[in-house]
Amino acid sequence: MHALKERILAEGSNLGSGILKIDSFLNHQLDVDLLERIGNEIGALFVSEQPDRILTAEVSGIIPAAMAAKALANIPIVYARKHKPVTMSEPVFIEVAPSHTKGSEVNLMVSPEFLRSGERVLIVDDFLASGQTIEALARIVQNAGATLVGIAVVVEKTFEGGRSFLEHWGVPIQAIARIGAMEGHNIVFAD
Amino acid sequence: MHALKERILAEGSNLGSGILKIDSFLNHQLDVDLLERIGNEIGALFVSEQPDRILTAEVSGIIPAAMAAKALANIPIVYARKHKPVTMSEPVFIEVAPSHTKGSEVNLMVSPEFLRSGERVLIVDDFLASGQTIEALARIVQNAGATLVGIAVVVEKTFEGGRSFLEHWGVPIQAIARIGAMEGHNIVFAD
Repeated sequence: MHALKERILAEGSNLGSGILKIDSFLNHQLDVDLLERIGNEIGALFVSEQPDRILTAEVSGIIPAAMAAKALANIPIVYARKHKPVTMSEPVFIEVAPSHTKGSEVNLMVSPEFLRSGERVLIVDDFLASGQTIEALARIVQNAGATLVGIAVVVEKTFEGGRSFLEHWGVPIQAIARIGAMEGHNIVFAD
Repeated sequence: MHALKERILAEGSNLGSGILKIDSFLNHQLDVDLLERIGNEIGALFVSEQPDRILTAEVSGIIPAAMAAKALANIPIVYARKHKPVTMSEPVFIEVAPSHTKGSEVNLMVSPEFLRSGERVLIVDDFLASGQTIEALARIVQNAGATLVGIAVVVEKTFEGGRSFLEHWGVPIQAIARIGAMEGHNIVFAD
């Protein structure tokens, strides 16, 4: 999407080690209008897969997921929690993923109540980098007896190999912007 | 709002110690349609205060804040981070609040870049209980030299006293649903 690429070029900064800072519209400050347009695009890309539900991970996946859900006739979203709140007392599906931006492992927890056997599930997240977080979310879908029907991300960093790592799931993977290289102040799109 | 009250009665559960579990539409699973209607109501309640920006706290404040921002001509949102990501390297405004549902203290961190002197700021959050989280957010607004113009929450638990605790800020405080008492399986609204 042209508007997203422009914003990444204007406001993104390369922090090194493959980390892209886009705090001004996605990861700290939120531009709701841009995120709604991104959600509409995700909706259009996946409406044919007839998802029943969106699964994402807190925190930065939630808004793109919510905007995609709006574009898909308000299907329910569930977001995997990384920190167990006191309201989460029953057994949960849990998977562990190494986190690039946290520098440690994160737990991803989903209540079975909100991810049911037989449901068609679309995973939405902010970034596709190594693919480890999305791999963990996809395992949760599988453990729930649900069917993964697609993976949508706002930004893919193609040089981190996440797409081929996730290929074994056999589902369409779509990114709204694809970054092929980051060198110094240069951010180069893959297409 | 009638629809919100109905959902709280149908799906909420009292976990004791004043903790209300409404995981099925606000705190784990998200009902985007309901949250959009809540955002519209917050927008209508505060449009006359002419906010330039919404401040909220991750995680569960983000969606009501985003939907309120949509209703207020897409003003920017910034959400206070509770866990510092590697993309947050510059100095930040930080305040500490005791958390009811986490059972410990939480940090709330906002980049000065996204909360500027002179801005008119509306705070939006999911719950108003003791008011400690919102008090910390309001101190961040003050520290930034910005002007707090209002406080909007999805659910207020009036019996926890947050409203009077926050009164010293001298701004309108609005809740979409107000719970006056929770006893056993009974949830009683305050109005």
